[in-house]
Amino acid sequence: MHRVHELFSEWMRAAGMAVHVDAAGNLRGVLESAEEEAPRLLIGSHLDTVANAGAFDGILGVVMGVALVEGLAVQNAATGVMPYAIEVIGFSEEEGVRFGKPFLGSLALIGELKPEVLARTDANGITVRQAIRDFGLDPDELATMALHPAAFGYLEFHIEQGPVLESEGAALGVVDAIAGQTRMVLTFTGHANHAGTTPMGSLRHDALAAAAEWIREVERYASAAPGLAATVGKIEVPSGAANVIPGACVATLDLRHAQDAVRQAAVEHLVAFASRASSTRGVQIAHTITLDQSAVPMDGVLTKALSSAVRGANGNATCMLTSGAGHDAMILARRVPSAMVFLRTPGGLSHHPDESVLTEDVEAALGAGLEFLTRLRDDRAMLDQLVTNARAYAEVRNV
Amino acid sequence: MHRVHELFSEWMRAAGMAVHVDAAGNLRGVLESAEEEAPRLLIGSHLDTVANAGAFDGILGVVMGVALVEGLAVQNAATGVMPYAIEVIGFSEEEGVRFGKPFLGSLALIGELKPEVLARTDANGITVRQAIRDFGLDPDELATMALHPAAFGYLEFHIEQGPVLESEGAALGVVDAIAGQTRMVLTFTGHANHAGTTPMGSLRHDALAAAAEWIREVERYASAAPGLAATVGKIEVPSGAANVIPGACVATLDLRHAQDAVRQAAVEHLVAFASRASSTRGVQIAHTITLDQSAVPMDGVLTKALSSAVRGANGNATCMLTSGAGHDAMILARRVPSAMVFLRTPGGLSHHPDESVLTEDVEAALGAGLEFLTRLRDDRAMLDQLVTNARAYAEVRNV
Repeated sequence: MHRVHELFSEWMRAAGMAVHVDAAGNLRGVLESAEEEAPRLLIGSHLDTVANAGAFDGILGVVMGVALVEGLAVQNAATGVMPYAIEVIGFSEEEGVRFGKPFLGSLALIGELKPEVLARTDANGITVRQAIRDFGLDPDELATMALHPAAFGYLEFHIEQGPVLESEGAALGVVDAIAGQTRMVLTFTGHANHAGTTPMGSLRHDALAAAAEWIREVERYASAAPGLAATVGKIEVPSGAANVIPGACVATLDLRHAQDAVRQAAVEHLVAFASRASSTRGVQIAHTITLDQSAVPMDGVLTKALSSAVRGANGNATCMLTSGAGHDAMILARRVPSAMVFLRTPGGLSHHPDESVLTEDVEAALGAGLEFLTRLRDDRAMLDQLVTNARAYAEVRNV
Repeated sequence: MHRVHELFSEWMRAAGMAVHVDAAGNLRGVLESAEEEAPRLLIGSHLDTVANAGAFDGILGVVMGVALVEGLAVQNAATGVMPYAIEVIGFSEEEGVRFGKPFLGSLALIGELKPEVLARTDANGITVRQAIRDFGLDPDELATMALHPAAFGYLEFHIEQGPVLESEGAALGVVDAIAGQTRMVLTFTGHANHAGTTPMGSLRHDALAAAAEWIREVERYASAAPGLAATVGKIEVPSGAANVIPGACVATLDLRHAQDAVRQAAVEHLVAFASRASSTRGVQIAHTITLDQSAVPMDGVLTKALSSAVRGANGNATCMLTSGAGHDAMILARRVPSAMVFLRTPGGLSHHPDESVLTEDVEAALGAGLEFLTRLRDDRAMLDQLVTNARAYAEVRNV
């Protein structure tokens, strides 16, 4: 990571930025505005990655930030000074690989890295606090970290990590929200009986047959509800045997949607369906919700301005989509209006060495980003609107 | 087992039988006929049991045999000599607990205990051959064992071990066949994808969703085919995770029916259905048949005579049913016409300490058995018919 920071720092300085690494190990390059107390646009993504991963998840968004500042610098030499500052951020520890907790860098940036997280240990027993010290930083400075008061927006470019844009034939997509998520475990309890001596019908209380009926409904219901993703990822018949009617079956459910109400309705329907489908078989169900995470909408005003720039640069209607996975933007959105652009991911393949991105898609993303930044530079009303929007955003959140 | 043999031997001798234990540890009590070279009726079941079992599985059939001879002896004192001999057999090792191979006693009786089976070892490394020696018997005599040449039928009383008779409100049932059985393993291979970033529909290749559709069809198809029992007893999503679309799913199928053609058609339909349901999802299937055991029909002539006696004794229409589990009668039927009577099993519960049987059902079974034996004693034409039937049976089988 030191070498990555070194390389990025060179690029950032060459593009005119002042560079430092904050107490959480986030690399931060600032292109100052000539104006005093200028509003500040944040552009970022993360520099860490998972094991055996590809080359683009996270880091592409940081490279994009530097490249946009470079592109702007070329133009600014001709057209004059910037009315806003840009801060490019390479977040640390987004994936949560080392300490089993994601978003450490972005949580620290907004001042929400809690003491108990600093006490978490990695596989070798080293705490987050110690790891920060070992990296050459001072963990005591974390306590005073806070988002820059002039920040009016956070922009993140990221590969989609899914198949939607490719299937739509679109290079880019604008994210409307990061989906909320429910995870639950359902236990179907019937009665184990001899597979040979128990005829079909009411004398069987087959827990797996009940679960199968429910899995079909999970698929049917989600397919009919636009934007809902529902997955039964694990299933088990405890102490099952080929010649024994399943007496119990345990299955997981993962539900995601951009709107919490839609997700909540799905939870209720699917639990009620499991209960109904089971009771006709003399099977009982119990469910435990293990995760209930609200959706995080991207900011409407910033996203609209961004979409308009994407259309302006590429001439196509903007493909809007919901992110099914979490991103640093989900954390930043607690404090500042945030928006995301997804780049098409060939084969939807990510967290894999074959993860890739098309050169022309990166070019399209750069074009769209540069269009956004130059509009913001040249259109004072647009900049004012986004700054006003950010103040209202902060007020609502009591920031 | 020595003490069980001792107790049974006392009862058998008191009922007028000559008793010995054969080289396979089967307890055999013979009530001779006064006539020379008299035909011989075999009545039996097994004396061994599973661990933590109930008191009736197997042993009830041997007790019934002794009790029937007792009942007949009381009558014979008044009505004279028997035109046929009766041999009551308490088979050894039907369950296969100790050596992992069932039916050792009945296989030995018909001369089909193979040398490789004698070399099998128990958990302590003791071979079947050694265990026979340790019991005080001579395994070398196994080679010369064969069914008595005058045997014309084998009759077995056994608890049903299932819920059918209870649900029909019937004390007794006559078995038409021991079901044939297919066991197979199906592997559904789709593609693991992120549960959050992959929308519902054609971009998913969900192996578990395909399996669930198939499990529904297994249940639907079997429920619509009279007498077919189909069970998916085990299912697994290898390396499954709650937030990953199942890339693979492995499930077992157990199929049983009295007619091999029905079972075969079910195998074909269900494999074809799995293939169809999978291909629309971009999921592949493969299947491996791990067991393909033909049905063993009980002998029609002997069963008809037995059913008539059951009706005569109890005044009810006979409940015919197929045995979903294996019994010694399945082995004996390779050599001699065989028939079975099932006794109602409360709650269908077996292989469990709470396994039970109703006293009045045992009384009904004794009444039916005694009716059969006295008809056979008093109706020479009926005896001749069964003897002729047995000769034809043996000829067809090249015995």
